[in-house]
Amino acid sequence: MNDAENTSVHRVQVRFAETDLMGIVHHATYLLYCEAARVDWLHKRGVSYQSWVEHGIHLAVVESKLRYRAPARFDEIIDVVTDVEETTRVTVKYRYRIKRGETLLCEAYTLLACVGDDMKLKRIPKEVKDVLASAELPKAQWAPVLGA
Amino acid sequence: MNDAENTSVHRVQVRFAETDLMGIVHHATYLLYCEAARVDWLHKRGVSYQSWVEHGIHLAVVESKLRYRAPARFDEIIDVVTDVEETTRVTVKYRYRIKRGETLLCEAYTLLACVGDDMKLKRIPKEVKDVLASAELPKAQWAPVLGA
Amino acid sequence: MNDAENTSVHRVQVRFAETDLMGIVHHATYLLYCEAARVDWLHKRGVSYQSWVEHGIHLAVVESKLRYRAPARFDEIIDVVTDVEETTRVTVKYRYRIKRGETLLCEAYTLLACVGDDMKLKRIPKEVKDVLASAELPKAQWAPVLGA
Amino acid sequence: MNDAENTSVHRVQVRFAETDLMGIVHHATYLLYCEAARVDWLHKRGVSYQSWVEHGIHLAVVESKLRYRAPARFDEIIDVVTDVEETTRVTVKYRYRIKRGETLLCEAYTLLACVGDDMKLKRIPKEVKDVLASAELPKAQWAPVLGA
Repeated sequence: MNDAENTSVHRVQVRFAETDLMGIVHHATYLLYCEAARVDWLHKRGVSYQSWVEHGIHLAVVESKLRYRAPARFDEIIDVVTDVEETTRVTVKYRYRIKRGETLLCEAYTLLACVGDDMKLKRIPKEVKDVLASAELPKAQWAPVLGA
Repeated sequence: MNDAENTSVHRVQVRFAETDLMGIVHHATYLLYCEAARVDWLHKRGVSYQSWVEHGIHLAVVESKLRYRAPARFDEIIDVVTDVEETTRVTVKYRYRIKRGETLLCEAYTLLACVGDDMKLKRIPKEVKDVLASAELPKAQWAPVLGA
Repeated sequence: MNDAENTSVHRVQVRFAETDLMGIVHHATYLLYCEAARVDWLHKRGVSYQSWVEHGIHLAVVESKLRYRAPARFDEIIDVVTDVEETTRVTVKYRYRIKRGETLLCEAYTLLACVGDDMKLKRIPKEVKDVLASAELPKAQWAPVLGA
Repeated sequence: MNDAENTSVHRVQVRFAETDLMGIVHHATYLLYCEAARVDWLHKRGVSYQSWVEHGIHLAVVESKLRYRAPARFDEIIDVVTDVEETTRVTVKYRYRIKRGETLLCEAYTLLACVGDDMKLKRIPKEVKDVLASAELPKAQWAPVLGA
């Protein structure tokens, strides 16, 4: 699978409440953008993350790293370019390049572990692993969302 | 101006981080949705709120009221149906009906006061008042946004 | 029961992340302060809210109203003066005066409804009602908290 | 200076709104705890971070890394054990061990760069560097806070 197939872009618009008194997006907000991007990444591969949760499959964040390159500001349109860098028996590592147009604002990764309802580690089921290695589907095959 | 002209719809998708341990959207989150809806309402009338801020015109929330009707959940698509209910010399009252499809989730209003950089009350300038009474423009005339 | 008995004071310190680009505490943050104050109010009457949740008793916010009087800023110490204004068969109304020293910053109330795990309305159990009408206990009788 | 002198402990109590639908503290919340801990760390060395901001000295987060070890839950008391690991000409690296009693919940660091009001890198002034290398003062010498 080439890089393009593994990548999806999630677009967000900076909310007023996401800024701080420095007038820029607060650094913790980027983790929320990354999380929304992961949900969207699955959605574009036909999967509602919620459906996994309902089957007792959770991808819990066990590590995160962010390097802030340039500030984002209120009302700007931001793209979270997201791909799966690596999967192991129990973990998946997502990588993010957060950009405003061509300007790189933040690079990040999150390492997620598959856990059950009991919060204990769990082998990633094959059907989950297949999704994590798959390409973005045509829009007609994206996961349905309540209210849409 | 009839109701339809004064109304705009802002669509959001519920983020994981916006839920709480009850499994539903936390009640404070709706104020963030309303705020984003106001920014979008102006945007669709050709105005970037940020441009007003840069001219020392702030619309500060002085009162808010929310009635929660039904819970929203992770990943759902929510519409914030927004209109201006009333303007006075120094205030504007926005009204919101937050819905998932036809289901009403929350009704709210926020009363905003026009203040200057010094946070003191300021008469709403005529050009601002005109925008607050205007209808949604065709998409080609919406305000530009950095990064889009 | 006189007013003093019904009142408890919850103290918070404004976090950097709770401010916005206007340099003041974001208006949605006050709902978080009120929520923390309710939890503390119960705590000072010997009750951990979590223990009610574990017994399927939730106090869900069904209505909130806030009037913002003066801005709060980063790092300030804020007191949330909280009392129960009214209880009915299924609801409890908390009232808040949020102050910095003698300066009133925000007045608010929240109306909460008793619901079960199914999110359906439920009569407030007598032992809950008794707590809601009770005075602050001496510190030695406050509810224990994990980690303290 | 030995480790004990460089270390301060900031105590927080988990708010309801800080949890998510997994019933645990959302992973982005730890960055807010770390930020509050940094402000408190300075406070206990006689410095209000806000006074630096007013002099055009900002410590902006340029990198953060968190390893989540065990979940925290609503209402728990959490200690953020904080020390300065390293300072360079323009950066300071804070290290955090976030604990509930003796249980390690999260290890983290944040790298902060000194920037001016123009957001450009700036040599850390000597008086700031001295504070960053100093021990916690007796309580009577902690920085004053508005409202306390």
